[in-house]
Amino acid sequence: MTRPRRVTVVEVGPRDGLQSQGVVLPPETIIEFVDRLGEAGLAVIEVGAFVSPRWVPAMAGSDAVLRGIHRRPGVRYPVLVPNEQGLDRALAAGARDISVFTAASETFNRKNTNAGIAESIERFRPVVRRARDAGVGVRGYVSTCFGCPYEGPVPHEKVREVIRLLDGIGVGDFSVGDTIGVAHPEAIQAVFELLLREFPAERLALHAHDTRGTALANCLRALDLGIATFDTSSGGVGGCPYAPGATGNMATEDLVYALHAMGVDTGVDLNRLVDASRFLEGHVGPLPGRVYRAELATRARAPK
Amino acid sequence: MTRPRRVTVVEVGPRDGLQSQGVVLPPETIIEFVDRLGEAGLAVIEVGAFVSPRWVPAMAGSDAVLRGIHRRPGVRYPVLVPNEQGLDRALAAGARDISVFTAASETFNRKNTNAGIAESIERFRPVVRRARDAGVGVRGYVSTCFGCPYEGPVPHEKVREVIRLLDGIGVGDFSVGDTIGVAHPEAIQAVFELLLREFPAERLALHAHDTRGTALANCLRALDLGIATFDTSSGGVGGCPYAPGATGNMATEDLVYALHAMGVDTGVDLNRLVDASRFLEGHVGPLPGRVYRAELATRARAPK
Repeated sequence: MTRPRRVTVVEVGPRDGLQSQGVVLPPETIIEFVDRLGEAGLAVIEVGAFVSPRWVPAMAGSDAVLRGIHRRPGVRYPVLVPNEQGLDRALAAGARDISVFTAASETFNRKNTNAGIAESIERFRPVVRRARDAGVGVRGYVSTCFGCPYEGPVPHEKVREVIRLLDGIGVGDFSVGDTIGVAHPEAIQAVFELLLREFPAERLALHAHDTRGTALANCLRALDLGIATFDTSSGGVGGCPYAPGATGNMATEDLVYALHAMGVDTGVDLNRLVDASRFLEGHVGPLPGRVYRAELATRARAPK
Repeated sequence: MTRPRRVTVVEVGPRDGLQSQGVVLPPETIIEFVDRLGEAGLAVIEVGAFVSPRWVPAMAGSDAVLRGIHRRPGVRYPVLVPNEQGLDRALAAGARDISVFTAASETFNRKNTNAGIAESIERFRPVVRRARDAGVGVRGYVSTCFGCPYEGPVPHEKVREVIRLLDGIGVGDFSVGDTIGVAHPEAIQAVFELLLREFPAERLALHAHDTRGTALANCLRALDLGIATFDTSSGGVGGCPYAPGATGNMATEDLVYALHAMGVDTGVDLNRLVDASRFLEGHVGPLPGRVYRAELATRARAPK
């Protein structure tokens, strides 16, 4: 397998990032953030979730966000959908791409969705069917693929089994998540080699968390295996390492910087991306991304 | 080349780390930090620098530190030495290992030492000879091997040339430094493959900086090439990413965690290392290491 020369970065800051950040932003702020991310060249930007505002207050304005963004040609703006009611709202607001979600750990999935894995996937069957009938793309998130906060290690075979179930209900592609940031390059290799036996690389993404500083090494190992889609958040929004319980999304800038240095194209303009993160930082407080902070420091030292 | 099963971590927190942190700690605090690092199983701990206190106030107490630490059998406690006067002080205080330093960039070396590279290495000739005559080990630091803040990219061949000069005056082993944190795994591979043509892996170390989040990926690539010595600082002391001008030493915990997860031995007890970093944090303020912060968060959530 030759290493991909071009990578698709799935920017999850406006949804996964803000949801974990613990702040509620008005729709107009999220809209400006999304538009700035689009201007920076990101081709896939996750913009919201049609979940109950009682569960996730930060996503209460997703209708307004999806209606308010300035869609750029060729850019996709997926939203998270938990059930048919969520799908109705998403479609009404103009969604053209949705994501459903489950986990590779039974305990985690029960705590998160109040259902076992197989049951949660069955519940998604009508959502996926109706989305596909409407010509809407469907992604499946699989959490805790490398470890679970309740169960500890997760068998690699379990990840494949869950993705087979998602494939069986018509999900188009799969985001393999290291939810608690315990993956390392050898675990990445083991899981993806297993998945690549029956799914093409184009249908697989790595959703790496940088909780323990391993995210870039993990992405680069997956890249060597042919994986060319990675989920990251602008500035690393979604779990500051200085806060207890940090979730630690991988920062988009950190991935883009390293890939560009190694001659891999992303289509992202790093300077404009830093501008988008800086805009967001003004609303949520300090962001932890390393390249983001290094770039700000460089700008601060530059002659005016 | 088979990947090493065991790695030597060179803990540079008490010298390189504190020197860049911008705080001056009393010798007794540094002594306790060093002793805690020794208890955590670190086999090489850089404890000070015999440079002018006017240049580097943080290292003014290095005599007292070297005299005050509780030396553990098998542990080495190197100190930085800039000239013969520094060597005299180091030997008088009981140093058994010293380090000299130069750079792979002429401009950086001139700004740092007021001499060209070849000239600075000539100046070290009597220092190295006298140290070796006294049975003292000598390491050579080479800064800016992957990029220079003044010159930009540094030719790989220049790194080899500088290490040849250090070898020529009797330096025993070499720390290849990514001073400004711009290396990526392919640059690591190019430089170390060049060096390994004439120097054995046992004489080479990587001194990675995590300014842009690439340090772990860089260390793992070097490990794959047979490199088994890495310089890191406890908690990542020596350049907080939240501060302008951050230097960003790689955090010892981040390296140790990833290596252990991948089955590579370091001899370090991660819990005790976190204790040492927490002790230091009480004196210098928040430390940026990712595993360090994740471990603190885990402890905060654990039932009492």
